[in-house]
Amino acid sequence: MQLISSQIAGYMERSSWIRKMFEEGIALKKQFGEDAVCDFSLGNPDLPPPPAIKEGLLELAEQADKPFFMGYMPNFGYPDVREKLAAEVSREQGVPVTADCLVITCGAAGALNSFFRAVLEPGDEVMTPAPFFVEYGFYCENHGARLVTVPAKPLTFQLDLEAMDKAITDKTRVVMLNSPNNPSGAVYDKGSLEALAAILEKHNAKRERPIYILADEPYRFLAFDGVDVPSLLPIYKYTVVCSSFSKNLSMAGERIGYALVNPALEDKATLVGAVTLTNRILGFVNAPALAQKLMAHALGSGVDISIYDNRRKAMAEVLDYAGYEYTMPKGAFYFFPKAPGGDDVKFCAALQEEKILAVPGSGFGYPGFFRLSFSVEDKIIPRSKQGFAAALAKFK
Amino acid sequence: MQLISSQIAGYMERSSWIRKMFEEGIALKKQFGEDAVCDFSLGNPDLPPPPAIKEGLLELAEQADKPFFMGYMPNFGYPDVREKLAAEVSREQGVPVTADCLVITCGAAGALNSFFRAVLEPGDEVMTPAPFFVEYGFYCENHGARLVTVPAKPLTFQLDLEAMDKAITDKTRVVMLNSPNNPSGAVYDKGSLEALAAILEKHNAKRERPIYILADEPYRFLAFDGVDVPSLLPIYKYTVVCSSFSKNLSMAGERIGYALVNPALEDKATLVGAVTLTNRILGFVNAPALAQKLMAHALGSGVDISIYDNRRKAMAEVLDYAGYEYTMPKGAFYFFPKAPGGDDVKFCAALQEEKILAVPGSGFGYPGFFRLSFSVEDKIIPRSKQGFAAALAKFK
Repeated sequence: MQLISSQIAGYMERSSWIRKMFEEGIALKKQFGEDAVCDFSLGNPDLPPPPAIKEGLLELAEQADKPFFMGYMPNFGYPDVREKLAAEVSREQGVPVTADCLVITCGAAGALNSFFRAVLEPGDEVMTPAPFFVEYGFYCENHGARLVTVPAKPLTFQLDLEAMDKAITDKTRVVMLNSPNNPSGAVYDKGSLEALAAILEKHNAKRERPIYILADEPYRFLAFDGVDVPSLLPIYKYTVVCSSFSKNLSMAGERIGYALVNPALEDKATLVGAVTLTNRILGFVNAPALAQKLMAHALGSGVDISIYDNRRKAMAEVLDYAGYEYTMPKGAFYFFPKAPGGDDVKFCAALQEEKILAVPGSGFGYPGFFRLSFSVEDKIIPRSKQGFAAALAKFK
Repeated sequence: MQLISSQIAGYMERSSWIRKMFEEGIALKKQFGEDAVCDFSLGNPDLPPPPAIKEGLLELAEQADKPFFMGYMPNFGYPDVREKLAAEVSREQGVPVTADCLVITCGAAGALNSFFRAVLEPGDEVMTPAPFFVEYGFYCENHGARLVTVPAKPLTFQLDLEAMDKAITDKTRVVMLNSPNNPSGAVYDKGSLEALAAILEKHNAKRERPIYILADEPYRFLAFDGVDVPSLLPIYKYTVVCSSFSKNLSMAGERIGYALVNPALEDKATLVGAVTLTNRILGFVNAPALAQKLMAHALGSGVDISIYDNRRKAMAEVLDYAGYEYTMPKGAFYFFPKAPGGDDVKFCAALQEEKILAVPGSGFGYPGFFRLSFSVEDKIIPRSKQGFAAALAKFK
């Protein structure tokens, strides 16, 4: 008997190689011990939450015997949390944002899906530069749309504007940007974003349905070397920003984020209303009550970014020593070096022989490269030096 | 410019009358004061969470400075929480349930959507008896399927098995049951469920894709007069149970629930794996970390059911005094009386004139009736006596 749908059966079959790699990594750790394996495969923020989280939990405990302590609230979130978030987001974006532009969501993933459900018609296309977060494809297909990818320019991973312009069709509804980028670490500069906005405005002039820019920005807080992460809000009217507190407050498993509709959009109430509705009907209903309250309490604090920066430098040292070709990441916590020999899956298997776990670029729609997360304990990075050198030596 | 999809624009237009009623209710409260209005329109559990929640929060605060305190966990939930939940669910269902049958979800709404995404093909049909929770229709359409409703028998609101049998087509993939029922308060008896199972097995014998029973059971704990809420697990192999801790632990806004695949299903790993995947790719990713831990801590405790039972009896007294026609609810916290005069929307407007808020049965696919929630402060119920009598008098 057929228990599941044909599409989901296909997904499960196609993702089996990732699961296999993951299971091999676990087996390695079991065989040689956790400490013998250098695991750079996961984007799970390892820094503890800021002290405000503990304080917040103690304050919440004081109210936990009251009716409606965790009861329903408006689907867009607690009004007071929304107000506080608006103030913080105004600061981050450098643009005044009012509470009525915000829907508090179950993480950025919840925000992305609620936005897609609100704006996509079946058959629509969502364009994104590759490499990209593999879940984007699923998020589009959830709503009957299709992800169209346009390779970013190697090795800087900046936008290929000409190629993006050419790839726009009547079906293009959203251009999705993730800057700082997972997995490449690229931060798109202001000039490129302005040029992209001009391209989209040219297309919009001929359409009834505007092309949105969806800015997925969970790593906005994590930029290095003083680099600017330009806000898209003043650059392009049809901008929606999604973000989460997974990384900056180490709340990845708690599922708290938001969708922000550009305050400059005249009819923003329609879009905010639609995302509030889709957030409800997709089954999120609302962002978790406690997560909302804790986030509001901890806003403005955050994990210590210098720790990530030091790891970035240590990782660069290791890769330089071993002789890898890469671009220094400007943001997020990933390196995306070139795979020696060109076959990223084969090369990650060679790394695994050296007890180093990495993710092939194929998993991000960009073969020939591989991703290393430096969201790992400090000591793991220098320990990987000889392993990286030995793996590379096999492909010379 | 068209900011949102045509389907969502249609939803927003169609739901405007509910919003209008809701806004009129708020206006009434503003005009006459909260205490002057008897609001029976909401299903927001008003009892405080059990003391275990406060204890749980204090314990969590002690661990809040540790890395990964709220980090990612497996998409099906924390393994230890899953184990504890399996023990509790085994007790509730009277059937041994192992942890590998469970996916912890963002409330029952998250479980329903993840299950639908896992099993539905575009064009499929989901059958449910009316009256039904209005969100069901959206949940089906999220995944390209269609809700088909079969009226339950008035006034008992038991299943009309003959009509259900006739309404099954090649496209029917799920029969969705909600017992104890929102809004009718009906609890389906074992004989009916066994007869339904026999009907579905008859159809399955001719099909490659089995028809599931999806049992949506957030009110399982809330049955009165010692009535049995039969488990579907021993009755029908293709049963999936969804539930939440919204009502029994007063965690409605915290979004925590589960999907349970029948342990008797030979290939249950495929379905559990698919729901784990869809829970991830729909953007839930996983149930909120803190909610999982709090739920595990509070399992086995629960709100005081006798409070609801006393309110039920008080509400029955009011309706008897005023002379309404209704069936005494056997579970959940709703009455679903006949609307005097037959027009439920018109009658709810008449109630509103008496400062009583109720929801027309049309909102549940069952015109001619109206829903009253008795999840309200005790004192509100007797206060509504004269208002109910006065509204009814207008239709005599």
